[in-house]
Amino acid sequence: MKPRTQKAGALIGVGLGPGDPELVTVKAARLIGEAKTVAYFGKPGRPSNARAIAERYFAPGCEELPLLYPVTTEIPFVEPGYVSALGEFYEESAKRLGSQLETGCDVALLCEGDPLLYGSFMHMFTRLDGRFRVEICAGVSGMSGCFAAARQPMTWGDDVLTVLPATLDEDLLTERLKTTDAAVVMKLGGNFPKLRRALTRAGVISRAIYVERGTMAGEKIMRFTEKHDDVAPYFSMALVPGEGRRP
Amino acid sequence: MKPRTQKAGALIGVGLGPGDPELVTVKAARLIGEAKTVAYFGKPGRPSNARAIAERYFAPGCEELPLLYPVTTEIPFVEPGYVSALGEFYEESAKRLGSQLETGCDVALLCEGDPLLYGSFMHMFTRLDGRFRVEICAGVSGMSGCFAAARQPMTWGDDVLTVLPATLDEDLLTERLKTTDAAVVMKLGGNFPKLRRALTRAGVISRAIYVERGTMAGEKIMRFTEKHDDVAPYFSMALVPGEGRRP
Repeated sequence: MKPRTQKAGALIGVGLGPGDPELVTVKAARLIGEAKTVAYFGKPGRPSNARAIAERYFAPGCEELPLLYPVTTEIPFVEPGYVSALGEFYEESAKRLGSQLETGCDVALLCEGDPLLYGSFMHMFTRLDGRFRVEICAGVSGMSGCFAAARQPMTWGDDVLTVLPATLDEDLLTERLKTTDAAVVMKLGGNFPKLRRALTRAGVISRAIYVERGTMAGEKIMRFTEKHDDVAPYFSMALVPGEGRRP
Repeated sequence: MKPRTQKAGALIGVGLGPGDPELVTVKAARLIGEAKTVAYFGKPGRPSNARAIAERYFAPGCEELPLLYPVTTEIPFVEPGYVSALGEFYEESAKRLGSQLETGCDVALLCEGDPLLYGSFMHMFTRLDGRFRVEICAGVSGMSGCFAAARQPMTWGDDVLTVLPATLDEDLLTERLKTTDAAVVMKLGGNFPKLRRALTRAGVISRAIYVERGTMAGEKIMRFTEKHDDVAPYFSMALVPGEGRRP
């Protein structure tokens, strides 16, 4: 690996917010507009969601560097094949970004939501920081977008908020939901039936709200008790609002 | 109370983000610029932080409606006087906003961070929603601003994130810090020595990062183990990053 040089470009992790292109920050819009190269993660054969959010801010003629996942939710996380396939993909993506940075060109890497909460950007950050200058622009998190879309105050006074991936096992989900004041559960997808059982066992299902595509076209928001099927995209969320001190 | 009429204005809760005026969203900048009346919370005799973040987006000649707290951190939360004084203040503030809305004027109510996480806006929302149309624009949360300022990836893979107010008692803080993968502790202020003990007892102090005025002028970021005094403003945070799956 080459050492970092004066002439190398900077990697800029740009948080895009929850999906509505108008929920991009003024700073992110500026950084995207200044970038000669814009990189983003996506799946082969599908339009990139990150690209769709940011496209209106692209400089005319900017170069695009799509980084396309070999697998996402097709293989269960527990399979070793998942981790090794992703590891190779991240290595390869970091190499491609590094090659671009070595030409002296800054690269804006688009990140849905907040770049530092469960974000693919973090895998590039750990691989490239130090070798290159890396800047990070915060974004509205997916969960903050869902709170607003659902018009749901989440934490009051001394409430504790727990953010949980629905990929956890049912007993652990149940225990976490029982022992917190407020909760956000992410990554529902095929974990939906398990999550419904955990919310029920924890005694919080009557307060729980289901949010699908929050702030985006096709947004769906309903109480869990009004959702009668178990179908949920991976990027849907459950909210359990807190009930703390309200002067 | 008057019933909601066709002519009444809308209350618009506008999230401002963590402090850097450029971290306001494109939508928030537009909503603020369109507002004939801009309301914000503050303390008497001090410049309002919310106003300072948003001022550059104000329409020329817009009316300002400052809502000034009678008490904030001067009285401990546990004293009944705190809750009743705040309760009266929120009632009075809701009345003032309601009077303005009844004239048919929309009011943009500025909210630091995310309006629905521990935000004063929520107290106006519960009092005015239903009587008036209320819209909510998500913002970058204070914690997301601090993650980026500290350049700190927070949650990986299946990490659980717990958001804790430092106002909780020491044993509870310790237990919560022990049983989570990642944590954000807010509202440090006078709770700092207690938090330091809790981080130590939970065995996570070596990973903990202190962030003061994240994304703002005077920003300070350091490891907890490098912070040798116990002085922290109320709006500082502790971050304990997760260490989950990293392909």
